[in-house]
Amino acid sequence: MFSVQTYQSRRSTLQKQVSSGVLLFLGNIENPINFEHNTYPFRQDSTFLYYFGIPAPYLAAIIDIDNDKTIIFGNELSIDDIVWTGQQESLKDKSLKCGVQETRPFAQLASYLQQAKKSDRTIHYLPPYQSSNKLLLGELLQVNPKEINPSVPFIKAVVAQRSIKENQEIAEIEKALAVSTEMHLLAMRTAQVSIQERHIAAAIQHYAYDHNCNFAYPPIVTVHGEILHNAYQQNFLKEGDMILNDSGAETAMGYAADLTRTFPVSGRFTTRQRDLYNVVLKAFEGARERLKPGVQFKDVHLLSARHLVEGLVDVGLMKGDPEEAVQAHAHTLFFQCGLGHMMGLDVHDMEDLGEQYVGYTEQEPKDTSTFGLKSLRLGRELQTGFVLTVEPGIYIIPELIDRWKKENKLSQFINYDLLESYRDFGGIRIEDNFLITNDGFRLLGPELIKSVEDIENYRTNHVQ
Amino acid sequence: MFSVQTYQSRRSTLQKQVSSGVLLFLGNIENPINFEHNTYPFRQDSTFLYYFGIPAPYLAAIIDIDNDKTIIFGNELSIDDIVWTGQQESLKDKSLKCGVQETRPFAQLASYLQQAKKSDRTIHYLPPYQSSNKLLLGELLQVNPKEINPSVPFIKAVVAQRSIKENQEIAEIEKALAVSTEMHLLAMRTAQVSIQERHIAAAIQHYAYDHNCNFAYPPIVTVHGEILHNAYQQNFLKEGDMILNDSGAETAMGYAADLTRTFPVSGRFTTRQRDLYNVVLKAFEGARERLKPGVQFKDVHLLSARHLVEGLVDVGLMKGDPEEAVQAHAHTLFFQCGLGHMMGLDVHDMEDLGEQYVGYTEQEPKDTSTFGLKSLRLGRELQTGFVLTVEPGIYIIPELIDRWKKENKLSQFINYDLLESYRDFGGIRIEDNFLITNDGFRLLGPELIKSVEDIENYRTNHVQ
Repeated sequence: MFSVQTYQSRRSTLQKQVSSGVLLFLGNIENPINFEHNTYPFRQDSTFLYYFGIPAPYLAAIIDIDNDKTIIFGNELSIDDIVWTGQQESLKDKSLKCGVQETRPFAQLASYLQQAKKSDRTIHYLPPYQSSNKLLLGELLQVNPKEINPSVPFIKAVVAQRSIKENQEIAEIEKALAVSTEMHLLAMRTAQVSIQERHIAAAIQHYAYDHNCNFAYPPIVTVHGEILHNAYQQNFLKEGDMILNDSGAETAMGYAADLTRTFPVSGRFTTRQRDLYNVVLKAFEGARERLKPGVQFKDVHLLSARHLVEGLVDVGLMKGDPEEAVQAHAHTLFFQCGLGHMMGLDVHDMEDLGEQYVGYTEQEPKDTSTFGLKSLRLGRELQTGFVLTVEPGIYIIPELIDRWKKENKLSQFINYDLLESYRDFGGIRIEDNFLITNDGFRLLGPELIKSVEDIENYRTNHVQ
Repeated sequence: MFSVQTYQSRRSTLQKQVSSGVLLFLGNIENPINFEHNTYPFRQDSTFLYYFGIPAPYLAAIIDIDNDKTIIFGNELSIDDIVWTGQQESLKDKSLKCGVQETRPFAQLASYLQQAKKSDRTIHYLPPYQSSNKLLLGELLQVNPKEINPSVPFIKAVVAQRSIKENQEIAEIEKALAVSTEMHLLAMRTAQVSIQERHIAAAIQHYAYDHNCNFAYPPIVTVHGEILHNAYQQNFLKEGDMILNDSGAETAMGYAADLTRTFPVSGRFTTRQRDLYNVVLKAFEGARERLKPGVQFKDVHLLSARHLVEGLVDVGLMKGDPEEAVQAHAHTLFFQCGLGHMMGLDVHDMEDLGEQYVGYTEQEPKDTSTFGLKSLRLGRELQTGFVLTVEPGIYIIPELIDRWKKENKLSQFINYDLLESYRDFGGIRIEDNFLITNDGFRLLGPELIKSVEDIENYRTNHVQ
């Protein structure tokens, strides 16, 4: 946990911002896998962590702004609990560590809220993402779970605070990145012909766990990098394959890292692989150099797309004027997703609070209909203190090509004939994490090799 | 998956058993960790697996007994889905593999059930354990989630079938045990002074994952074996500690193993450790030899408790007549939990369906108030084809001792003075998995070393 003052000061800022009513924070529970008592690893809600820091299940908290009261609701251990789970720090003591003096049994939360409701005070709450909290909110507020109506002022105040990272938060993210960088080098050393993708995932998970971290998200470790969210890890590596490894650690305090590297199984890229890899690298570098306060991330995304198109024209897979191609969204046949997203206590930071508040503003709303842009999680103007990912890629998706080709879609920009010979190419992504600084950006964490030469040399020196 | 015939025949048996109405099966979803799209590893509901075998999220099925119709409800992939998750086998094809011809979009499930409800037909469903299915049931049946009322005839029919394991299921359990046995040997080789508990857990998880398995449950790997459900793994191993390792693999098809071994960090047990270890081993062997059809498992539990008391009297920690001590539940100061439980597709098999139906019968109800017996998950008469665990233990829990001692509880059986000097002793458990056969029992999986001599020799040969 951070210092008592950290949590007190964060809550005090929030309280001033929302100005009246009761702020309700729901912690997470231990979620059942296949029966109630067989549970997934516990992960506290990130906003609860941000304002209270206690990584324990079955807690809730309120900040009663009108009465200037902060209370944590939860149950102290019974002797039966102690037999099963061992003696633990009391809730009282845990609460003192985040500067909260008052704790009450969980069962008293409902009546507290009902009381406030009766006095016509507003109960502010955030959008629940776990079903258990949807059910709980329904019970606490005596409404149908479908009528849950999160508080926009509360959301906006939380987003405003959590978007600007404190130095101690940046240090935590860099801890996650130090571990993640080693995970990626280990993956490069582990990969070899005829092992399964899951072997690599298992090895890097082992490394993360050994270094007091978990995965920040289910890792993508695949020879089919073109499948954007690929959980399948049963393929065997063969000569000529590339591995796309998108994985990052989460520190014990909950801060994430999110890195992607793509490298050849056989130690050397083929000519085609090298050429497209360098196209992605150029798009990555172009985007990175553009990062600074005041720039719209949507423009960085489109700039990166333009670099991709220029490279794809050089290779012969696209044609025509790159600027016009990007305006026509022709690049989305190769780059279907967004350039990046906010990162912090969540790998997609605050995604539970709503992309329209985190990655966009009312003045800069999201384009929710255009293929490509509708998957761009971050579009707004950048500010000093933002932490984000930059992750351009090229993904050759046969089903999408077939669909576009059938419609002869944007054929003025796409060389469908040559593209046919790339059907089995796969996908390439390069991803690092950056802090927006007053005068530009800073790469977070150690520098992780990413040029063709560095990767080939590393693979050659460590495997063959 | 098993053969088409397997699932058809299981469903046909079930259908005959319940005889009328609509049987509703809800599959599991991908559960959010910290926001909707960051999800825990998917695990299909075990009953859904048993009757339909499809390990994919967002499915439901019905067996409409009155109309002799079986339908799987779920959605085929859209082009957007394919971009993100890759081309996959269609729901239609997956359904054919379990012998179901008819599939419909998920959205049609509600109206199908409403229609049946209007015709006053009974909709049978099982107790939901994931909150998402509590919410879904509420919506589908248009009832408050609190008014959910599972079908006892459906539960009983499922329990009757799943309790008697088929040969192919036993083979799967033995696959899980083959991997688990190696995990336990690896743990013994990995443990050494000054590493953290979590290093061992990470190593055995790596092994499981490398062998196409997951953990069947969160592993307990601890120097505080007296804490029965100990998720904490940050302690450093020291000379003189014992490690209690309770961990088991789950195969890709979902079958579990559940093994526990306790071994000394330093390669040799101390005299006190060896003595109590042998007490537990004798209680284990005594219980095992008693396993056969027709025997009440509650009696096996009490027999095992009696062996424990006899051993504890020999050591001097208990006194008086062992039989009387067990009748007075004096052993529960050392053995607070149950001797074992059913095992299969769940590590506590069918625990979601209710212990009163799985581990007990109406004629043999559970004792839900007596400390010790209230934690015995299985009490009923054993039948050929049951698969269960046997796992006696001795757990020295300081908080519990203090409580009993203050009340001078059962002091005719407890030697509290000597016990004080054991306060930091820890805990020991030995656990294997057995099949009940016509004439007794069969140990499932490979034999895993458990005598003091074998463990000390193995530790000596592989570590020091």
